Amino acid sequence: MTRFAVPRGMRDLWPEDWAKMDWMGRRILDVLIGYGFKPVEPSKIELLETLEAKSGPSIKEEIYWFEDKAGRPLGLRFDLTVGLARMVAGRPDLPLPAKFCAISDMWRYDEPQFARYRHFWQWDAEIFGSELAEADAEVISAGIDVLRAVGIVNFEVRISDRKLAEGFLRGMGIGDPARLGEAIRILDKRGKLSRGEFLGELRSLGLDDRQIEGILDFVSIKAPLEEGLSRARGLGLERGMAEEGLKELEGLADALRGFGIGQEAVLDLSVVRGLDYYDGIVFEAYDRGGEDIGAIFGGGRYDGLCGIYGRNVPGTGLAGGMERMMLSLERSALFPKLRSGPLVFVASANEAVRKEAIRMAQRLRAKGIPAEFDLKGRSLRGQMEYAAGSGMPYALIIGPRELEKGVVKLRDLGARSEEELSAEDCLKKLSDLARSFAR
Amino acid sequence: MTRFAVPRGMRDLWPEDWAKMDWMGRRILDVLIGYGFKPVEPSKIELLETLEAKSGPSIKEEIYWFEDKAGRPLGLRFDLTVGLARMVAGRPDLPLPAKFCAISDMWRYDEPQFARYRHFWQWDAEIFGSELAEADAEVISAGIDVLRAVGIVNFEVRISDRKLAEGFLRGMGIGDPARLGEAIRILDKRGKLSRGEFLGELRSLGLDDRQIEGILDFVSIKAPLEEGLSRARGLGLERGMAEEGLKELEGLADALRGFGIGQEAVLDLSVVRGLDYYDGIVFEAYDRGGEDIGAIFGGGRYDGLCGIYGRNVPGTGLAGGMERMMLSLERSALFPKLRSGPLVFVASANEAVRKEAIRMAQRLRAKGIPAEFDLKGRSLRGQMEYAAGSGMPYALIIGPRELEKGVVKLRDLGARSEEELSAEDCLKKLSDLARSFAR
Repeated sequence: MTRFAVPRGMRDLWPEDWAKMDWMGRRILDVLIGYGFKPVEPSKIELLETLEAKSGPSIKEEIYWFEDKAGRPLGLRFDLTVGLARMVAGRPDLPLPAKFCAISDMWRYDEPQFARYRHFWQWDAEIFGSELAEADAEVISAGIDVLRAVGIVNFEVRISDRKLAEGFLRGMGIGDPARLGEAIRILDKRGKLSRGEFLGELRSLGLDDRQIEGILDFVSIKAPLEEGLSRARGLGLERGMAEEGLKELEGLADALRGFGIGQEAVLDLSVVRGLDYYDGIVFEAYDRGGEDIGAIFGGGRYDGLCGIYGRNVPGTGLAGGMERMMLSLERSALFPKLRSGPLVFVASANEAVRKEAIRMAQRLRAKGIPAEFDLKGRSLRGQMEYAAGSGMPYALIIGPRELEKGVVKLRDLGARSEEELSAEDCLKKLSDLARSFAR
Repeated sequence: MTRFAVPRGMRDLWPEDWAKMDWMGRRILDVLIGYGFKPVEPSKIELLETLEAKSGPSIKEEIYWFEDKAGRPLGLRFDLTVGLARMVAGRPDLPLPAKFCAISDMWRYDEPQFARYRHFWQWDAEIFGSELAEADAEVISAGIDVLRAVGIVNFEVRISDRKLAEGFLRGMGIGDPARLGEAIRILDKRGKLSRGEFLGELRSLGLDDRQIEGILDFVSIKAPLEEGLSRARGLGLERGMAEEGLKELEGLADALRGFGIGQEAVLDLSVVRGLDYYDGIVFEAYDRGGEDIGAIFGGGRYDGLCGIYGRNVPGTGLAGGMERMMLSLERSALFPKLRSGPLVFVASANEAVRKEAIRMAQRLRAKGIPAEFDLKGRSLRGQMEYAAGSGMPYALIIGPRELEKGVVKLRDLGARSEEELSAEDCLKKLSDLARSFAR
């Protein structure tokens, strides 16, 4: 490699990955637009104080930030929710509810790991201005339809409620904000810890055996939504905040039925979502075939977020990582046949017919058939080697003899077979082939 | 506005502009993919030295740059060409020619002006590895087809050659690199200067009357390509570098004929393209109806650029600003009817039929008809006000009486008319309406 490498944690998307991203993006957008979300693109650079307002001053350690030439601190956004919430808060004239979605990129200064980059893409959909459980059900339903649209069918959405988790922890005597926050953080990373590590972390919080026992009972509840809710009722949580959380979950269960969602939704009280702005329903979806990839989407309710930006508007939404989805689809071989380069190379048998080859390439292009011709002045053999080496499936050979006969020669570079066709038949055949690729 | 504004020179794309960007992007990509360009996405953050290698250390003044937490200087990219050239230079295994395109965003720390932001989008297509005039002709032809694909038909592509301009200036005795660079810079901004200002700038370079006269004759040549070339021959430029430039232009004129390009191409010797890496054919396209917007695309040959990144590969390409194109299309009312929000609001006449409304919304969505339902628990009247206020063209009213009769009520919110239909007929009608919007 030269010294002009891509910076650590960044990467270039080459044609194959670009085509996969584009294919996923089109399917996701079609679903979200169908659900009435309007696509937008929030600014990718925010005032640092806008980012800090959501996540506290420590966010500086986890993001790219810098001062502009006027000395103003700016930061590269780390998610889409902040920008969307800021947009909605800044427009008091917007009719509510306002439903926006985005598929775009962001940056975090993490340690790069498997399938995690410092620059990455997310899809995101948010409903601002509805406090109803039907809004939470709608984002979950949209998320489920996104998974189905890209071919993921073996998934589950694990649902809980931050009020329930916080109410429960408070009821256990873990009341002061710092310890409560730490306990939520430990619950959040439970999936990555062994049972021993999990217990160790809880003990280091200074919890006694009764508290730890209680937490273990709490997080062990994982069952289809209705059944899970009656088990949760059995824990005797019906007090104050925990009771509110249970009521929200019961409302959600009812609303999900209206959307025709059944077994895909499970109650999982270990789900808390680490990010500190969630304050109601929370959920995470997993591809059952690849849980190690992590949640394929996640989200929840954040009724307090917009208020930070100057307008009290309830919110609920979800986001998913495009890279994770790509990995999931690759593992299960769910990508269709995608075209990441031209379909046909128009070769010229000699110098005299080069213009004829260009004309044919232009005719193909006008019909929507991606075509290339020789740009190196190579021999016919050299042209065929280039076409095969570049992965083009077909070559069309223009020669003086064929021109005289009024035909073209079409070579299938994979099957190494060849046929003579009239130009019209050839255009028709290639046109059909072009349509056989997904976009 | 709150203190959480968008940083100066940045902006959010709201649904209407997003829909326009998306529409343009789809058309542009279809053309470029047809021409055999493979879409990619180069890293948006580069090592600062990668950006400086192309544009010199002074580029720091014009871009966003910062040190990462390891003290490594990084910069936000200011164009797509650098990243594409770096990608190609770093992959010696790539078959050549390699044709890549990208539609994406970048940043420059300019003073914000009319239709110019500090964050903006470009489309870009590049051919690496061909020294033939047919490659230059192909990028120009692709550019022309991009304009036609979005509906711009009244345009011209102004073409010149950097070797011709430099050879001419050297022949006039303007030989030392600093003065030569300055002279090119003055030619480049000629369109923005009055004749008096232009002469003043040339005089301040220390040029005498004979030189200024010569330059005025040179830049005055603007005519259809063939005619222009014979007028340029009349200037007696046939020496060394200028002669090379003329030969390149003659080769290009011949190649453009092969692509069927005639009157759209004009020779305009005042075109030099400011950026310092061009070293052959250069061109700029203008919408004749809006020259004040500036070039709608521009490009040229840069045989020396990839070498900077470690691999000697000739290159030629073009790029255009998405914001400028949007402005041009808006002025000429060339955007089709785009949908930036849901097509239909499914209203429920009372609480008892809410689930029925959700079910209908889900049926519509499954058929690709963007639909929304009440998420505020509003009265029917409140729901209709919201639907109309949000710009939705249709409302579908689910009521107990209609449910009993097995019909739905479809209201045209623009025409304020209403009809009763079976659910099936209604789905069919809305499905057709959904298809009448461009995407």
